[in-house]
Amino acid sequence: MSTETTKTADETPGRRKREHPLLMVNTGHGKGKSTSSFGVMLRSWAQGWPVGVYQFVKSARWKVGEHRAAMALNASGDERGGRIDWFKMGDGWTWTVKDLEHSADLAREGWEEIKRRLADETYRLLILDEFTYTLTFGWVDTTEVVDVLTNRPGLQHVLITGRDAPAELVEAADLVSEVHKVKHPFDEGKRGQKGIEW
Amino acid sequence: MSTETTKTADETPGRRKREHPLLMVNTGHGKGKSTSSFGVMLRSWAQGWPVGVYQFVKSARWKVGEHRAAMALNASGDERGGRIDWFKMGDGWTWTVKDLEHSADLAREGWEEIKRRLADETYRLLILDEFTYTLTFGWVDTTEVVDVLTNRPGLQHVLITGRDAPAELVEAADLVSEVHKVKHPFDEGKRGQKGIEW
Repeated sequence: MSTETTKTADETPGRRKREHPLLMVNTGHGKGKSTSSFGVMLRSWAQGWPVGVYQFVKSARWKVGEHRAAMALNASGDERGGRIDWFKMGDGWTWTVKDLEHSADLAREGWEEIKRRLADETYRLLILDEFTYTLTFGWVDTTEVVDVLTNRPGLQHVLITGRDAPAELVEAADLVSEVHKVKHPFDEGKRGQKGIEW
Repeated sequence: MSTETTKTADETPGRRKREHPLLMVNTGHGKGKSTSSFGVMLRSWAQGWPVGVYQFVKSARWKVGEHRAAMALNASGDERGGRIDWFKMGDGWTWTVKDLEHSADLAREGWEEIKRRLADETYRLLILDEFTYTLTFGWVDTTEVVDVLTNRPGLQHVLITGRDAPAELVEAADLVSEVHKVKHPFDEGKRGQKGIEW
C-alpha cells in the first residue's frame, strides 16, 4: 500500500470535511503510550461513540485499572456516554478459536476479529493496544494491516500503541506520537506501583 | 532545592518500600501528554483513591470529554472506585478569590490551592494539567514548586503535564516522559475533531 493511495483516500469528498477517520500511532520507548490511548477513549466515550479496545498483552494484572474504569463507565447510566467493549488477547476473542496454544495464533485471531469489526463498522474508535509487537514479531503481516486500515470504510478512528512501530505503519498514519523516556524510577531499581502502572 | 535533598527524601525508610510517592512529568511538543495523565487517573480511580485534577487551561470546550467521563465514574456507584475532583482554572478555585481578571492571578491562586491540598494530603494522585505554562510564563515560581513538591508529606503522587518543563522540575521528578510529534494532521491543515482532541 503506497502513501499515494492513502492520500487519494484522504481526498475523497467525504473525508475533506471536519470529521475524517484518523489512523493514530503512539510509539516510542517512554511511558504513556497506552495510558494516552485510554485518555482518548474517554473523549470518544463522552461523544457517545462505541469504542472497541483490543489489548495484545498477556499479563493477568496489567491494565486492570483502566479496564475496570471502562466497565464502570458502561454501567454508569450516563445516557450521553458511549459503550466500551474490551477484549484481551487470550480470553476476549476465543469465541471463534478454542484452546489456542501460541501467542502468534492468538494475535492473528485478534487481527482477524478486528478486520471483521472494521468491515462491519462496529466501532467509532478502535484501540489496538500493544499491537506493534505482533507486527515486529512477524505474527501479523504489516503490509496487510496497513492495507486494511488504509481502506477501512466510514469514519472509524484507529489508535495503535506499542514500541517500534514499523515504518510502513508510520507512513500510513495520520498522527504519530513518539514517547521518549527522559527518566523512569525503574532505572533506580524501583518497581511498578498500583494506581500508576496498572 | 538541590537534587541531593530529593534523594535524601527518597531514601527515608518509608519511601523505600514498594509504594513511594512519584513526581511525574509528561512534557514535549507531541500529542498525548494530557490524555496520558487521564489514563493514569483511571488507574488511580480503580485503586479507590481520591484524585484531584487541576486544569490550567482556559478554553471552555477543551477536554470536556475526560471531565464528563470522570464525573460519570464518580456517579457510577462502583464501590471500589475512588473519587475524582476536577477543577478548571477560572471557575474551579474562585471560591477564595472572586473576579480575578488575569490569568497569572488565576494560576497563582490555583497553585496556592494545590499547596493547601498537598499539606492536607487530600488526594492520592494530583494531576496538574498544562501546569508547565504557568512556570515558563513566570506566573508561579519554579523553585518554590520544586521545593513544595519535593517536601510534600505522605504518599501523594503528582503528575504534571505541558510543554517545555523547566530543567529544575525535570531534575526533581522521578519519572519524565517526553512526547515528540512525528506527524500530526494539523500539519496538513486539518482541524481538531471531537472525540479525539476534546
